[in-house]
Amino acid sequence: MASIAVIGGTGHLGKGIARRLAKGGHDVTIGSRAADRAEAIAAGMGLGIKGAANDDAAQGKDVVIVTVPYENQEATLKQIRDKVGSAIVVDTTVPLMPPKVMRVQLPAAGCAAAEAREHLGPEVRFVTAFHNVAAHILDSDAKVECDVLVFSDDIEARKTVVSLIGDMGLRGLAGGALVNSAAAEALTSILIYMNKTYSADGAGIRFTGLTTAPPIP
Amino acid sequence: MASIAVIGGTGHLGKGIARRLAKGGHDVTIGSRAADRAEAIAAGMGLGIKGAANDDAAQGKDVVIVTVPYENQEATLKQIRDKVGSAIVVDTTVPLMPPKVMRVQLPAAGCAAAEAREHLGPEVRFVTAFHNVAAHILDSDAKVECDVLVFSDDIEARKTVVSLIGDMGLRGLAGGALVNSAAAEALTSILIYMNKTYSADGAGIRFTGLTTAPPIP
Repeated sequence: MASIAVIGGTGHLGKGIARRLAKGGHDVTIGSRAADRAEAIAAGMGLGIKGAANDDAAQGKDVVIVTVPYENQEATLKQIRDKVGSAIVVDTTVPLMPPKVMRVQLPAAGCAAAEAREHLGPEVRFVTAFHNVAAHILDSDAKVECDVLVFSDDIEARKTVVSLIGDMGLRGLAGGALVNSAAAEALTSILIYMNKTYSADGAGIRFTGLTTAPPIP
Repeated sequence: MASIAVIGGTGHLGKGIARRLAKGGHDVTIGSRAADRAEAIAAGMGLGIKGAANDDAAQGKDVVIVTVPYENQEATLKQIRDKVGSAIVVDTTVPLMPPKVMRVQLPAAGCAAAEAREHLGPEVRFVTAFHNVAAHILDSDAKVECDVLVFSDDIEARKTVVSLIGDMGLRGLAGGALVNSAAAEALTSILIYMNKTYSADGAGIRFTGLTTAPPIP
């Protein structure tokens, strides 16, 4: 059992991750800007999920998962970077730039993950994941028909996160180095485009031909 | 039946595309730098496939598909741009930078597709596709377990290419604007990484949850 904070955990993505991790047997705290809001939402979710202000939630955990919109990424990461200690920080940010969310617009640094690494500094153990999962499906009891790519330059941290994703009933797959996050970040715009073009409610991806990968749950 | 040239068509990717298009009933010419080499390879392939020098092959066709390595992309596109006329040019280039081919390294322009658009000029009808298909599997009789993403700002041209991919026994899917090629270009490095990490011979991707997409053949 790992102790896990989900920062900005009151949207579909954060709640979906929190709920599935709690069901998988982990000790989960949802963080929000306001402690009372986090506590109220956590109480409504049950499963032993707790609520706290973001910076309190980030402290003393094994894993800290950040689920905030791109425009809040920098401020949120700078707020928690001195709190997380030796925890693995998992960022889920996709650099969507409304209104053109069906158009790939990667930042000049190459990807939001590279920017996040700058915001956190080199000491923090850092992983990215969950870029491509439809948040409203994750935050339901439906089966998620989408592999979850996990990127990091810290191989042990990447393994830990792949394993946590398995505990959530999803298939996590290592996607290589942190900079490879660019592929998953860009793919999100393709999936949004496909939702519109092919009448999908939550388009996803599956990788094929992998001999030694975990089976699809 | 469309008349189609496959420029640089003597590698696995070019031969695989040529063979499957010819089997699908199209009139196919393979192009190579040397006409005699193209003719010899075409004769060996049968199926009515012809061979010619690249610039001869590019002339008078409905569709011109370019399958050359990234380092030859600029020279090849500049060589054919005044030959192709009203043909749809389909570029397959992935900006891999050996030896770090498992690492996403998109060019400063955002993607190789944006660079190709510059090389061709604004007059040419331009589409990208085939970034993620394992070339050695395409160039065999095996089933290709991979969707083929098709990108363009020219919606009619994109539709034509999606349809041609269907004729090849593969599933083509529209992926949106030309700049969205960045997602498929980046994904190729992930697939190469997965081939090594998960003992795959030709990892691929399938999109899930698409209600109105063509069925998987």
